[in-house]
Amino acid sequence: MELRLRAPLDMHLHLRDGEMLRSVAPLSARDFAGGLIMPNLVPPVTTGEMVREYRASIEEAIGEEKFRPYMTLFFQEEYSYDFLKEVREEILAIKLYPAGITTNSEGGIADLSVERLAPVLEAMSALGIPLSVHGETDGFVMDREAQFIPIYEKLALRFPDLTIIMEHITTKEAVEALFRHENLYATITLHHLSITLDDLAGGLLRPHLFCKPIAKRPEDRTALRKMAFLGHEKVMFGSDSAPHPREKKEASHCAAGVFTAPVALPALAQLFEGAGVLENLQKFVSDNARRIYGITPPDKEVLLVKEKWRVPESYGGVVPMFAGEELEWRVESAL
Amino acid sequence: MELRLRAPLDMHLHLRDGEMLRSVAPLSARDFAGGLIMPNLVPPVTTGEMVREYRASIEEAIGEEKFRPYMTLFFQEEYSYDFLKEVREEILAIKLYPAGITTNSEGGIADLSVERLAPVLEAMSALGIPLSVHGETDGFVMDREAQFIPIYEKLALRFPDLTIIMEHITTKEAVEALFRHENLYATITLHHLSITLDDLAGGLLRPHLFCKPIAKRPEDRTALRKMAFLGHEKVMFGSDSAPHPREKKEASHCAAGVFTAPVALPALAQLFEGAGVLENLQKFVSDNARRIYGITPPDKEVLLVKEKWRVPESYGGVVPMFAGEELEWRVESAL
Repeated sequence: MELRLRAPLDMHLHLRDGEMLRSVAPLSARDFAGGLIMPNLVPPVTTGEMVREYRASIEEAIGEEKFRPYMTLFFQEEYSYDFLKEVREEILAIKLYPAGITTNSEGGIADLSVERLAPVLEAMSALGIPLSVHGETDGFVMDREAQFIPIYEKLALRFPDLTIIMEHITTKEAVEALFRHENLYATITLHHLSITLDDLAGGLLRPHLFCKPIAKRPEDRTALRKMAFLGHEKVMFGSDSAPHPREKKEASHCAAGVFTAPVALPALAQLFEGAGVLENLQKFVSDNARRIYGITPPDKEVLLVKEKWRVPESYGGVVPMFAGEELEWRVESAL
Repeated sequence: MELRLRAPLDMHLHLRDGEMLRSVAPLSARDFAGGLIMPNLVPPVTTGEMVREYRASIEEAIGEEKFRPYMTLFFQEEYSYDFLKEVREEILAIKLYPAGITTNSEGGIADLSVERLAPVLEAMSALGIPLSVHGETDGFVMDREAQFIPIYEKLALRFPDLTIIMEHITTKEAVEALFRHENLYATITLHHLSITLDDLAGGLLRPHLFCKPIAKRPEDRTALRKMAFLGHEKVMFGSDSAPHPREKKEASHCAAGVFTAPVALPALAQLFEGAGVLENLQKFVSDNARRIYGITPPDKEVLLVKEKWRVPESYGGVVPMFAGEELEWRVESAL
């Protein structure tokens, strides 16, 4: 049994920089035709020159692979219309982080009032630059995403022409919000389709499944699965694959992030096949993103075959999701 | 400033065995006049001989310290009235674990129907042996304790003369249940008075704060604090101090348990003083337990002084709660 995916896209991807970039970028480039590259480096990506340099590092890391890095800027209140117009061709989206909410988001936005954000958002809206958002408050960890929904809704109402991406949604509340606003869309990760808080902390605690936003309740996962399994046009795949070296995960203070890049397509195929909706995976991993972002990714076909393989315990010191476990599908080739 | 506690008791304590026992028992014996010793060894403590042997190991480990180990049996459906009558003088309570719910509970009870448990519980009731319960279902990790409440209530109604201890309660639902049944009591840990799920997983993930039952929501902690701070007669201190070597905590699969024995009294004094109820700590850490269990612990006075000290990073390879942090009170002497 085989599955051909046309131009699979990972619309939320952390490639890091330096040695880690060189280690993980080829794994995404092998399986995907493109990805939306998150800008939360240290320091964050905030200028055209930084975008160009980061893109060049990525291209160097992936070599000959057919993979397009769709670049992003780290949202700053200071961005002017002229600056954004100039940089428009270099980026696909701008990522907004509330301050301090996840890895390397210290320089994010502390005051999320619409009026503070309005000048930049008006410029983005006029220039057709989508807004990508890590939507969490600083409230209780299980409530943060649901508490952020009113902010999404205010932005969606105030800027009806702005495409707003609710990144890595984890709750039924977020799914419901998608239906109330034409200009709201969402990415969903592999791990939030796969696990709940039970997998992280219901048995032994499993730091390699620790991520932000934290995995939620079974009914939340059900709501996410419904959307993904339908290939619903409002949602697209974004892995949020976030590599940390093993010693930062198996530690007294463990960094947030699940490393899924090298297992994402096989694990998604297994999930979708298990739900009897393998035919909808194409929409979830590519077609919806093309339409939402209006992009034409490189012409690349990825062939998966139904053949068991054991996921390595580590890729260059980074422990992937499903490490040491068997997956039923594997990537055979990409052309 | 100083605080004198008369015969402080830790009514839920894991002392383990072997080398770990020798390492941690002196820390409890230094600060407390006695403790209820959990029986979940490998294999669990299920016979009079095992109780005597375990007690002897504990007494050897604590040497000359004035500390009474109140022993428990691991609940088994097979216990007969005659067996329990014979062992009555050796134990203070019998601990019931649902199968597989926490560390070394594989031999626990899979079928918790009242009729299955009735013969043993009737014998315990007749002999005046309290029942100590780890009250969690195998449901979603945040719901397990609340889901178990109906089982507590059935037991409380069916065996009105049986003293039932809801161990290490973590939810407002459990607090509410205490008020519905005369024969229900509870222990509360230091860590559940101190943290919520946010402390475990809201920032970086902190495996040394990972425990079962898992820390819950802020409103749950508030409900626990109200009871403890009042020195309410329904609740008593049980640390659930559960040492694991560092390498079992900072690992891909982290064991559940917070090691609080060496910091418990200072941290409790700090919490109670912060709430303006230092005078109620005596009830919480001793008087209530004496009355609920009808015990007369060794005559021991523990003197705490308000003097900052830094908690060690580790005690014999076990990382304590508040490792490396400053506490405001310290144990000066015990006589």
